[in-house]
Amino acid sequence: MNEAWWCRPCDAPDIDVERIALARQGMLTKPPGSLGALEDLAVWCAARQGTDRPGIERVWISVFAADHGVAAEGVSAFPQAVTGEMVRNFATGGAAIAVLARQLGARLDVVNLGTVNDPGEVPGVHRATIAPATANFCDAAAMTPVQLRTAMQAGADRAALALDHDADLFIGGEMGIGNTTSATALACALLDESPDALVGAGTGLDSAGMARKRDVVQRALDRHADARDPLERLRRLGGFEIAALTGAYIAAAQSRMPVLVDGFITTVAALAAVRLNASAREWLCFAHRSNERGHARVLDALQAQPLLDLRMRLGEASGAAVAVPLLRLACALHREMATFEQAGVTRA
Amino acid sequence: MNEAWWCRPCDAPDIDVERIALARQGMLTKPPGSLGALEDLAVWCAARQGTDRPGIERVWISVFAADHGVAAEGVSAFPQAVTGEMVRNFATGGAAIAVLARQLGARLDVVNLGTVNDPGEVPGVHRATIAPATANFCDAAAMTPVQLRTAMQAGADRAALALDHDADLFIGGEMGIGNTTSATALACALLDESPDALVGAGTGLDSAGMARKRDVVQRALDRHADARDPLERLRRLGGFEIAALTGAYIAAAQSRMPVLVDGFITTVAALAAVRLNASAREWLCFAHRSNERGHARVLDALQAQPLLDLRMRLGEASGAAVAVPLLRLACALHREMATFEQAGVTRA
Repeated sequence: MNEAWWCRPCDAPDIDVERIALARQGMLTKPPGSLGALEDLAVWCAARQGTDRPGIERVWISVFAADHGVAAEGVSAFPQAVTGEMVRNFATGGAAIAVLARQLGARLDVVNLGTVNDPGEVPGVHRATIAPATANFCDAAAMTPVQLRTAMQAGADRAALALDHDADLFIGGEMGIGNTTSATALACALLDESPDALVGAGTGLDSAGMARKRDVVQRALDRHADARDPLERLRRLGGFEIAALTGAYIAAAQSRMPVLVDGFITTVAALAAVRLNASAREWLCFAHRSNERGHARVLDALQAQPLLDLRMRLGEASGAAVAVPLLRLACALHREMATFEQAGVTRA
Repeated sequence: MNEAWWCRPCDAPDIDVERIALARQGMLTKPPGSLGALEDLAVWCAARQGTDRPGIERVWISVFAADHGVAAEGVSAFPQAVTGEMVRNFATGGAAIAVLARQLGARLDVVNLGTVNDPGEVPGVHRATIAPATANFCDAAAMTPVQLRTAMQAGADRAALALDHDADLFIGGEMGIGNTTSATALACALLDESPDALVGAGTGLDSAGMARKRDVVQRALDRHADARDPLERLRRLGGFEIAALTGAYIAAAQSRMPVLVDGFITTVAALAAVRLNASAREWLCFAHRSNERGHARVLDALQAQPLLDLRMRLGEASGAAVAVPLLRLACALHREMATFEQAGVTRA
């Protein structure tokens, strides 16, 4: 298993460029540090793009959709048919992420990994069906070993396609009724946390629904307590889209493509990615703190300080998309501001 | 004084449109509330623009520059010459706000209300000199009554110009060495707070500088303790740019133009505006929580929940500019997302 592709180490960011970019920030016409997180962002991009003139022009967004066997336990406010319906809504432009991608001039790539309500061939949707859904992980492993590898490879393939299109930034998104339950169970397993600490309302559960979800996550953790390594935990408790995101993040990092991570479910996929390959962490930037209850804990585990806190909890990569202008503006400030010398402005 | 122009009440936002916009948010293909603050922003814009299809296309940014007599007390990390130098840097495109305005396609309006180091006629700078600087408010009132009215009118004139250009959003910014000291003194007076609670590092004071600044603010408060109404406090402790911002915010609100407030100094101007004319509050949206120490307290006094918290502390309207994409994306989502019915997606 040590020879699996996802174990191959990622390059470190370019420390020399990082040093040059940091020095430039100190020369620009502003009090040192006064652009706060935007200065850090610009330096972060510079060190990863290997240039002191960073820029985030071409943004690639892959949204992975898949259904979950655990939906049978009644853990979502929405019926399972919605996953397939939303795949069509992504492609026809009415979903939030479709609107955002259009506004940002970003490329939106929709990947159907398997939905119970199969929309069939839809223009603009890449069909990579693994199965109609994962197995219900209260009863069995969510995925077979082959399904797990297929899902991870499907994610890596989209990262490779983004690279082929010269993307400056890779964003992953997800859609799947029941997938906060899967992500929560996986996070509990990876972090050795109890469901009480992490279970949240998902798309909008009431307190009875939350109690049921807690119970379902606890049963899953008990059922799969023998799974100890991150790959096996991902296989037992994850979903096709979560495994695809894990693969995509690692593959993007291995090819030196910066990643902007979205919300709760994608952050759990990022945690799985970092547990499988710690060197991927340096290539991950975290967009926002979502309103889903467990997100803060998972971000903490990754020592991630997200850019935004707008009480969003939609998924679909929507939170990451909303943060893209911050990266773009941070890079533009870094490239285009005058230095004290250029502008003839007196220093402190 | 009750007949002064700034006392004329502002219209209320359109409650009928607000209701329609809220209802639309509930019909869009997402769990209710899952776009968090972006939903509130879209509804906020709709009610102020009087249309259920809001949009923030034309953004107007007026940056007001002015010098402060209190700079003689050594309250800034930068020399006073920098105010005039930065006026030129705004106009020639090297300052942070110039880069941001260009990126956003926003109109940048630079207004020189009086600088000790006078850059003279500079293309792209509107010259509205009141005096080289305010008086040192440790010794005297910062402004004469005529200077105060002139400064407030200068701000109102720029809001009127923005309206002439069909601006969808008015943003005010400021530049003036020593102006966090002026804003802090004014905030202490308006909020009945002690300097200990509000004095911060400004552009980068060390602890000795902070202690000096606290002492200066305390002396100013003692000297002007007899000033009890907000207009007189603004005259005694404010600056030309702070009074201009106060006038601009009120005039924008009176003409139904939404305002996006920037950082600490502009928020203090917004507080003065609301104390002079409470009905202006409904037209103010707050962009970010800056790193300047007193900002949180002033935001609380205005019951403002800012959109961003990026540790910025530059001023110049930079924090407001960075928040503009959030308003634009929020409005685009509101206008362009499909409803459940349109997309054929099952509701919860």
